[in-house]
Formats: sequence, C-alpha cells, structure tokens
Amino acid sequence: MQVALIGAGLIGASWAALMAFHGHDIAIFDPSPTAEDDTKNVIQSAWPDLEKLHETTRPIHWEKITFHTSLETACQNAEWVQENTPDRLEVKHQILSEIENFLGSDVPIASSTTALMPSAIQRNMQHPERFFVAHPLNPPHLIPLVELVAGALTDERKLKEARAFYEDLGKTVIVAKKERIGHIANRLNAALYREAVYLVSEGIASIKDVDLALSEGAGPRLAAMGPHLIYHLGGGERGYASYLDHLGPAQENRWADLGSPTLNTETKHRLIEEFQIAYPDQKPEVLRQKRDQLLLDFLKAKNKFKF
Amino acid sequence: MQVALIGAGLIGASWAALMAFHGHDIAIFDPSPTAEDDTKNVIQSAWPDLEKLHETTRPIHWEKITFHTSLETACQNAEWVQENTPDRLEVKHQILSEIENFLGSDVPIASSTTALMPSAIQRNMQHPERFFVAHPLNPPHLIPLVELVAGALTDERKLKEARAFYEDLGKTVIVAKKERIGHIANRLNAALYREAVYLVSEGIASIKDVDLALSEGAGPRLAAMGPHLIYHLGGGERGYASYLDHLGPAQENRWADLGSPTLNTETKHRLIEEFQIAYPDQKPEVLRQKRDQLLLDFLKAKNKFKF
Repeated sequence: MQVALIGAGLIGASWAALMAFHGHDIAIFDPSPTAEDDTKNVIQSAWPDLEKLHETTRPIHWEKITFHTSLETACQNAEWVQENTPDRLEVKHQILSEIENFLGSDVPIASSTTALMPSAIQRNMQHPERFFVAHPLNPPHLIPLVELVAGALTDERKLKEARAFYEDLGKTVIVAKKERIGHIANRLNAALYREAVYLVSEGIASIKDVDLALSEGAGPRLAAMGPHLIYHLGGGERGYASYLDHLGPAQENRWADLGSPTLNTETKHRLIEEFQIAYPDQKPEVLRQKRDQLLLDFLKAKNKFKF
Repeated sequence: MQVALIGAGLIGASWAALMAFHGHDIAIFDPSPTAEDDTKNVIQSAWPDLEKLHETTRPIHWEKITFHTSLETACQNAEWVQENTPDRLEVKHQILSEIENFLGSDVPIASSTTALMPSAIQRNMQHPERFFVAHPLNPPHLIPLVELVAGALTDERKLKEARAFYEDLGKTVIVAKKERIGHIANRLNAALYREAVYLVSEGIASIKDVDLALSEGAGPRLAAMGPHLIYHLGGGERGYASYLDHLGPAQENRWADLGSPTLNTETKHRLIEEFQIAYPDQKPEVLRQKRDQLLLDFLKAKNKFKF
C-alpha cells in the first residue's frame, strides 16, 4: 500500500520502519532539514530489531521510502495516511485542511495523537468520516498496542479498515468505545504515574524503589496479563467474583489513601534531584538500546501464546 | 538457616519452595489437614521453574522440609520466621504472642502481610524491635520484588539483616521510608486498578481491551523499567527535566480526568459479566501455568542486566 507519513519525529520515524518492514511504500513529509537523515537512522537501527522479532531477514528497500518537504508530493497516490505532527489542535487543523486537497475522498487518515480528541481534530474537515485516532505506544515499531478512537463524525467502517491495516502490521488493536482524555492506555499510565509521583513527593519511597516496584514486581506480571485477569487469578477457584467479594474492600481502602499530587515547581525539583541520585550517568541513548533489547525478548516470549 | 514458615497458603507454600531451593531448612506450621499435601504440590510444581530461572538442577531435599501443627515444634531452633497467616490483626496478634514464647529474643520475624501496618501488628509484642514486614508479590518464588517496611518499634538493624537474607534468595529488595496502606507496590497496583475499573464501569473500554492495553502496551515497558525512567526516555536528550516541563501539563490534564469508582454491587456485577465475555472458559489453573511460563521467560531475559 502507498502510505503517506505526515511528520517524522520519534513516532513517525518508528512507524516508517514498521510499515516499510511490512512491505508498504512510504512517502514521508517533514519540513525539518534533518528529517531524512534522522528517519533513515531510526529505520536502520529499528530494522535488525524487527528482523529478530519476526525471526526473519529482509533487505531494506530504500527506493520504496521517499522523503518530501511538500505535502502535495507526499500525498500523491496515497492509500493510507498516518499523521504524526505536534500535538496542537491548530497544527492538526492546518495540516488536514491542506492534505485533504491532495487525497482521494475516502483515503483513511489516522492520527497518532496522544493528547487530542478525534472529534476536535476532525470537525472542520471536508471528509471527517475518514478520520480517526490510531495511537501507538513508544516505540511503535516494537510495542504491539494500537488504540483506535473514533470521533463523532467518523464512519465505523473506517475503524474496521483500520483494524485490518494495523493487524497486518502485527499490531494488537483495541478500540475505545468513547473518546476521553488519554484514550485508554495513557489513562492507565497516568493513574500509575500519579501515584509514582506521590510516593516520591510524600517521602514514602525513593524514585529507584518506585521504579523497582514496577520493573521487578508488578511489571513482569502486567507484561503477561492485564489487571482484570491478574485479579481473576487472585480469587482462587471462583475467580474474579471471589476476588471482588473478598479483596474488593482492601482495594477500596487503598484507593481512598492514594495521592493526588500536582507537578508544581517544588515537586518537579524534587523529582529531578532524586532522579539524578537514582540514575547517575545514564545516557538516554544507552538506556533506550537496553530497553529495546529487553522489549524484544519479552515480545518474542509473548509470541508463544496470547490470553 | 533454620526458617519457620507460619501459615502455608498460596504465599507461604511459594516461600517454602523458594527458601528450600536456596538451601534453607524449612519448618512449616499450618493447622489445615491438607496443608502438607498442598504445600508439597506447590513445591513440586515450583521447583522446575526455579531450576529454569537459575539455569541449574537441584534435588529437592524433602528431609529438610518438615510440617507441623504445633507452633512450638515449628519454631524450634528457628533463626528466621516468615509469617503468612490471614491478614487480620487479631490473628497476627494471637500468633505472634504464642511464637515469641518459643523463639530466641533476637530472631527476626518477617510478616508477608499485604493489608496491615507493621506498627499495628508489633505493638503488643515482647520484642517488637525484631518485627517488620517483608511483602512479596504473587507468586513469591518467581516475582523478584520484596518490600521491607519497618514499624515504629522496629530496629533498623533488622532491616539490614532482612535485605541480606532476601537478596541471598535472589530477591530485589526495596524499603518503604514510611508505612502506608498498600506499602509501595500495591499502592501503584491499586492506582492502576482503580482506572482499569473506571474504564469498564464508564463504558470507555471493554475488560479485554483494558487488559490488552497493559499486556500488549504499557506492561512490557514496565517489565523493563519503572515509570520515572520511562518518562526520562520520553524527554529526549534533556531527559526527565524536559519531560516534566513539556509533558507534565498533559499528565496533569489526564490526572484531572481519572475516575474514582466504587466497587458497589452494580459495578461488581458489570465486571463479572464483562469478564465472562472477555475470557470464556479460562480455568485459573491453566492461566496460572501460562502466566508462570511467560514470567520465567521475562525474568530470564531480565537477568542480562538491571537498570
């Protein structure tokens, strides 16, 4: 398929690697003078990871990946659009009003937006029914999840097309039944992070210990199964019903004691200061490589079966 | 070391397997007539997992694992006590007042309690300074995390001994700086679960999709690194400070929209009903085996390096 990728930051470049790996022709629009080199670097370094994940080798067909500083040429013959521009409504409105001039009226336009709602993005479009959110988690070429969110004007059939498209890329697709801030995954992440901040700001635990509580504790379980299934297993032979009856009250007690911090200057300073104590001299690039190595191992293990 | 395990439910039996694997002599107290058989089954099935995790084979020395229905014989010559009785304060008080009669005055007593606070448990003890919480995550023989929590009367030196003891078992030890409901890990789990319930009760997402949002999305990342380190990587070259400046406001927007459900009858019915749709015919025993297989693979991958 001919895919137009609009915006090649971290997310756009990672999408490019994934889609190229799965045989699509990719036209990348990004106005930055370094976008082509940066994106090529991302593709180059993502490729061996994708080969490991899929236990296969594939050459990179660079001739099928083109770079554009014009929206018009990037959208030429496009059959799919994945938009990854900065998360500001006026940017999205501006870009969409331009690209609709260069696209067939039923070409799907997916937005990778994290923070914006599809109804707000699509409201001035010529053909809003083709627009929806397809939100990946970072890094998109590795993390399986894609969340689909329809706006008020989205045609349900486009979501069906989208499910097929992303599943062909090897993704796990979930669908929000309502649009809400943070979609689904980042609401869960935000809930977790709020308490992760509170534990540090209240002096209950160090940053390092909060992180270990996840990575060496709850995290590996959550990489295997989600919280509803985990607590089903916590309920013995009667499962979830028994869990809710016997341990529901303990959950509610904890809920009542959870914190509600604000990221004011004092809290931010404390987080940054404690972070430097917890992780001295950790370069993001080295951490990222190690993380991706672990992710690859986890995801390969998960290929054995799904729940 | 001679360890007395007081209470052999799911947690106690899993501790027994782990401690026996690491060469300790285990005396298990449990009044239930099926405790001995049940515990032996847990040890038998945990053992090959422990062998895989440590890439070694070891015989089970059954003669070093004894079963008792008397607290006095279970505590004989004990050098360490791990208490895993039901999470009710009056049960703990009763058991502790009995076992202190049979123990040397400086023998550490660790409680696996999830829901109770160490200060409340230790307050009537003869030697409260030897008491602390050492809370594992289920299943304790696989999940590395152990959280230590001191009560108001705990001697800090006991926590140092405890760190050494659990690290010798291959555990990752974290220490709560204050005692609070849920310690550390289960506060984070509760925060996550609260939103996982809200998403379903508000009809934003199905149970299956909430679980996938974790297991196929945020979970694998959280199995690699905790939230503070994850967002450090979300901040580009300036790291966490940049994340907090640029994406802190988006987090706060999400926090403001998170739900605060109650587990009333209606919500519980909805969860149970939707659970059966999401996971028809999934037997806890089969799920548990699959989960443990995945956990083993994840933990073996994580042995390569720690952050």
